[in-house]
Amino acid sequence: MAHEFDLIARHFSRPVPARFLGVGDDCALLPVDAGRQMAVSTDLLIEGRHFFAGVDPGALGHKALAVNLSDLAAMGAQPLACVLGLALPAVDHDWLGAFADGFYAMADRASCPLVGGDTTRSVSGITLSVTVFGQVDPVRALRRSAAQAGDDIWITGSLGSADIALKLLQQALPFDASLLAATRDALERPEPPLFFAQDLAGVAHAALDISDGLLQDLGHILAASHCGAELDYDSLPVHQALRGLPAAVQEAAVLGGGDVYELCFTAAADRRETVLALARRAGVRATRIGRITQGGDMIVRRADGGVVAVPSGGFDHFG
Amino acid sequence: MAHEFDLIARHFSRPVPARFLGVGDDCALLPVDAGRQMAVSTDLLIEGRHFFAGVDPGALGHKALAVNLSDLAAMGAQPLACVLGLALPAVDHDWLGAFADGFYAMADRASCPLVGGDTTRSVSGITLSVTVFGQVDPVRALRRSAAQAGDDIWITGSLGSADIALKLLQQALPFDASLLAATRDALERPEPPLFFAQDLAGVAHAALDISDGLLQDLGHILAASHCGAELDYDSLPVHQALRGLPAAVQEAAVLGGGDVYELCFTAAADRRETVLALARRAGVRATRIGRITQGGDMIVRRADGGVVAVPSGGFDHFG
Repeated sequence: MAHEFDLIARHFSRPVPARFLGVGDDCALLPVDAGRQMAVSTDLLIEGRHFFAGVDPGALGHKALAVNLSDLAAMGAQPLACVLGLALPAVDHDWLGAFADGFYAMADRASCPLVGGDTTRSVSGITLSVTVFGQVDPVRALRRSAAQAGDDIWITGSLGSADIALKLLQQALPFDASLLAATRDALERPEPPLFFAQDLAGVAHAALDISDGLLQDLGHILAASHCGAELDYDSLPVHQALRGLPAAVQEAAVLGGGDVYELCFTAAADRRETVLALARRAGVRATRIGRITQGGDMIVRRADGGVVAVPSGGFDHFG
Repeated sequence: MAHEFDLIARHFSRPVPARFLGVGDDCALLPVDAGRQMAVSTDLLIEGRHFFAGVDPGALGHKALAVNLSDLAAMGAQPLACVLGLALPAVDHDWLGAFADGFYAMADRASCPLVGGDTTRSVSGITLSVTVFGQVDPVRALRRSAAQAGDDIWITGSLGSADIALKLLQQALPFDASLLAATRDALERPEPPLFFAQDLAGVAHAALDISDGLLQDLGHILAASHCGAELDYDSLPVHQALRGLPAAVQEAAVLGGGDVYELCFTAAADRRETVLALARRAGVRATRIGRITQGGDMIVRRADGGVVAVPSGGFDHFG
């Protein structure tokens, strides 16, 4: 059987930039630029809960890092480095190699090298722990509490596809191979808008990433900022694969579907052109979906003035 | 059933110093002093593997943080903050309250506030993920690769008690209630020498914490520093509870026993008085146990010149 250190040497020892000291020592040392603070986020991913047993290991490696990078994006932080905890029931070098490939490919694109970790044998199932580190000017960081009445509400990318893929895989929707093919990457290989998010620091006001569902997550901004919101349902960027699905299925996916890992942010109305120019430069779709209001309510309006019923709750971890 | 956010609000929302921004946002923001780098370490702890099912939750909370703080100590870093991932099969508020008490008590003593985390339901058993952040002047950080021929080898605290407690609980040693009472705290409530370790930065050369066993861990210093070591067995600070145990049991515990979380470090012979003065000031026992040599071998000598057989290997995570 492989020893812990052999596992790390074989699969998790790709080169790290020389500015990171201490890699392989008791701690990795991370340089932080003057005037910046370290931004930190951590996630646990459990087989059978956050991902399916038998999921493609490359996709799992990608997503484990991507969902954490999404938290850095939501603060407008620049990724610096990450650490990985990996508990496995047994050593499968093919699986580990594919997992490492997916993880490192995401890390390389994000300039977020893996600088440390912990591997161990689990009693049952796979558990992943990823912690990411970024840096950000604390004055420019995108806080949930910074939305202001009159702000535009924006979202990157499109909505609904990850939720449809999840429901297809859970057999909560009838089997549809072409619909799954069109939506599966959104669920398994999310691509948070990392570079656009850094450009937004100092331009946008509040931001967060959509992990539990648009309405639930936007609710966190409203609660932290003590304000309300009006959303224009017909302006929402519904993923094109959802066309043809029943309206109720679309609405549930778009308003309540989780695992999106796109950015929802607010910005003053006089920054619209700046936001769109930054989005073009980053190759990101940014869509204005509503506005922040002084009241505490969240209202979703159709073009005809009708109000869409808001599904209650989102992803309840202990529900 | 409790919602993730209720769990956090109820058990993991104790006050955080105002200098930590972003707590409760997508990321926590950590200030790093000018000229320092961020030191990072992460550990996964799995029920049935790293701790017994049914372990006292307060002790578990203590140890989950203490073993990570021990990695900061091994770099001479000052603790700054920590994050916690917690996967539980069910919500038990009594258990969570006791766990949080143990975790926060250790965090308070170490000045290492909990600034973020993730809680989720596990499929089976408890999994903990702790990541700690410290800061250290990179020039003064204690690296495994910094040992020099002629250095004294030192160890803090005493050796052997955690291993004896583990073997008693595993029934690998005959039941002995008084021996277990005398050794159990070493296993379940290790107290890494955090403040002494910070004082050693800039004084000592190489350091690490003893997690897998003295010989195995010292071997990492020797490999990284390209040197050897001679240890004087009779100078080793054997825990007093081990007196009366067969010599072979003592030697296995002292040389090979893991879970020690004391510091092994090297320092030039002309710093002996400085090391002892710092140890006295910190209330830490520091014992000189040997010296670094030019060769690559590790030799353990008795006072009579006899050589103690070195047990091979230590804790093999996938063994």
